[in-house]
Amino acid sequence: MTDAPPLVELVRSGFVESVHHGAVVVVRPDGSVRTAFGDVERPFFPRSSCKPLQAVGLLESGLDVGSADLALACASHNGEPGHVERALALLASAGLGESDLHCPAVYPMYEPARAEAIRTWPGERRAAMNCSGKHAAMLAACVRRGWPTRGYHDPGHELQLTIADTVEKLTGEPIAATAVDGCGAPLFAFSLTGLARSFSRLVTAQDGPARRVADAMRADPWLVAGTGRDDTLLMRAVPGLLSKVGAEGVHAMALPDGTAVALKLADGATRGRAPVLVAALRALGALPDNPAALSVVEGLGRGAGVVLGGGREVGELRVTGECLAALAS
Amino acid sequence: MTDAPPLVELVRSGFVESVHHGAVVVVRPDGSVRTAFGDVERPFFPRSSCKPLQAVGLLESGLDVGSADLALACASHNGEPGHVERALALLASAGLGESDLHCPAVYPMYEPARAEAIRTWPGERRAAMNCSGKHAAMLAACVRRGWPTRGYHDPGHELQLTIADTVEKLTGEPIAATAVDGCGAPLFAFSLTGLARSFSRLVTAQDGPARRVADAMRADPWLVAGTGRDDTLLMRAVPGLLSKVGAEGVHAMALPDGTAVALKLADGATRGRAPVLVAALRALGALPDNPAALSVVEGLGRGAGVVLGGGREVGELRVTGECLAALAS
Repeated sequence: MTDAPPLVELVRSGFVESVHHGAVVVVRPDGSVRTAFGDVERPFFPRSSCKPLQAVGLLESGLDVGSADLALACASHNGEPGHVERALALLASAGLGESDLHCPAVYPMYEPARAEAIRTWPGERRAAMNCSGKHAAMLAACVRRGWPTRGYHDPGHELQLTIADTVEKLTGEPIAATAVDGCGAPLFAFSLTGLARSFSRLVTAQDGPARRVADAMRADPWLVAGTGRDDTLLMRAVPGLLSKVGAEGVHAMALPDGTAVALKLADGATRGRAPVLVAALRALGALPDNPAALSVVEGLGRGAGVVLGGGREVGELRVTGECLAALAS
Repeated sequence: MTDAPPLVELVRSGFVESVHHGAVVVVRPDGSVRTAFGDVERPFFPRSSCKPLQAVGLLESGLDVGSADLALACASHNGEPGHVERALALLASAGLGESDLHCPAVYPMYEPARAEAIRTWPGERRAAMNCSGKHAAMLAACVRRGWPTRGYHDPGHELQLTIADTVEKLTGEPIAATAVDGCGAPLFAFSLTGLARSFSRLVTAQDGPARRVADAMRADPWLVAGTGRDDTLLMRAVPGLLSKVGAEGVHAMALPDGTAVALKLADGATRGRAPVLVAALRALGALPDNPAALSVVEGLGRGAGVVLGGGREVGELRVTGECLAALAS
């Protein structure tokens, strides 16, 4: 990753202030590589962009939930009341409670929900953590299958072995390494190309668990992220789009025809992702026709609200010429 | 900056997950360059690392305050009660109030103070913004000098012209560009080498405004930043050290002999700065002897508490071999 090319520049008052290096891959519906900018074959950590693949593994393990709970299982959610309540309800339906979650207790990431929680909760809570839906679904799958819930996050647990097997099938690659994700669950390393191919498979599957996960996420983009979040805004704006963020500058998305994009910013920056995604949508002719939707997407694409001076916008994010040229080719 | 070399790696579960590119320069007490890793001559935005230079300009403009207020004028403070109260007192001493500040209203950046403010304040406030001391001191200088306070942040205001002149003298370079800083004040572009040279001059000055600023910051490291912050911890741990962070991955420091270090992470990352600073201190033989102080500095150097999994430390930050080799040479 030390040789990653520049993907995005931050411009302040007309001058380039900062640069995000990284890699981006676009695969065709048949899984062949259409664009590779940077090293897209080296294993990396997909972080929460792997959640849809893990959710397919949960269905393969016997998880038996409706579409909304499945969307929450794929979520990096804001911790808004609707997210927290659904995670608790999913746990309750399996006869479990918040203390069974292995993910750490936090205040919500969505600022208004966070402020409200600081004012009114007795303290931080696990159900508010952005991965609580995944953890609740993992626990529910164990109960359904008769596996022990204790140690459900251990990489050697039957559930995690089943998920790892599913991840390898969807990416078409062996897992290169297993680590600990931010929430304490197993984290699997594979290539950026493998991530893009797996997203392509989710949307092109005719039926079965892969398609169920893609449809659940697209049916309720708010549950997958929340108010004001990129995934929610993009899936609402672009019909049929599947989109999932990951920590440390990761993002993956697939168009309904199976064309898929995956990117990793080498430095892990959050703010650099949306401009690359929007540039990819533009290059693929997939920007929305609807003017209101187009305006939202274009705002994300230039980092609206990111570069401020005295509370006013004094700059923007923009994709580098080299990256734009690669996406256009 | 697109060709910046890798400075810092983030390691998760033994694997490199992310990389921060950038540039670092070390200058000798005479201002000559000892180490240059990356392009250290290109103009960049020093952000809040410029505050000590701006404070010298305030003294040159006639600002007449004590050492503690001068430290606050150089601060990117946490918005803890002691910071907010001192900013308000400085304004009051000039016959002004919080509404005269041009910086935006926020909740404090220090999490416990932020939570307390969310619980008890009627809303966000300008005095809590990390640059409120600089803005209050700018206003006080205008009052003292008889310049209009209205528009004190305008790059064409007499105060800002005086500050720009001082900045050029301290860096030994013409200002390459003027932009809008995050707080709305003028932001001057110059080279990383110029920033390091200016810090060297602050600590080697025998007396006068430059030395007054360096001494004020070193006399009260808590006012310059706050609880748990790198600048506060480093200045407390390393006797005679002058240290000042800037947004977008900037940091500058000077040892009491006039050796100075300045760095910019190309991607603007906050977390990558301390490991490079600590590696530079080690290369310069300036780590503290005191075991408790050494432990604090070494914790900053490996990014203690940054790489977590399920609430536990599962990795660290480390300076790249190329950067370490450059610093050692």
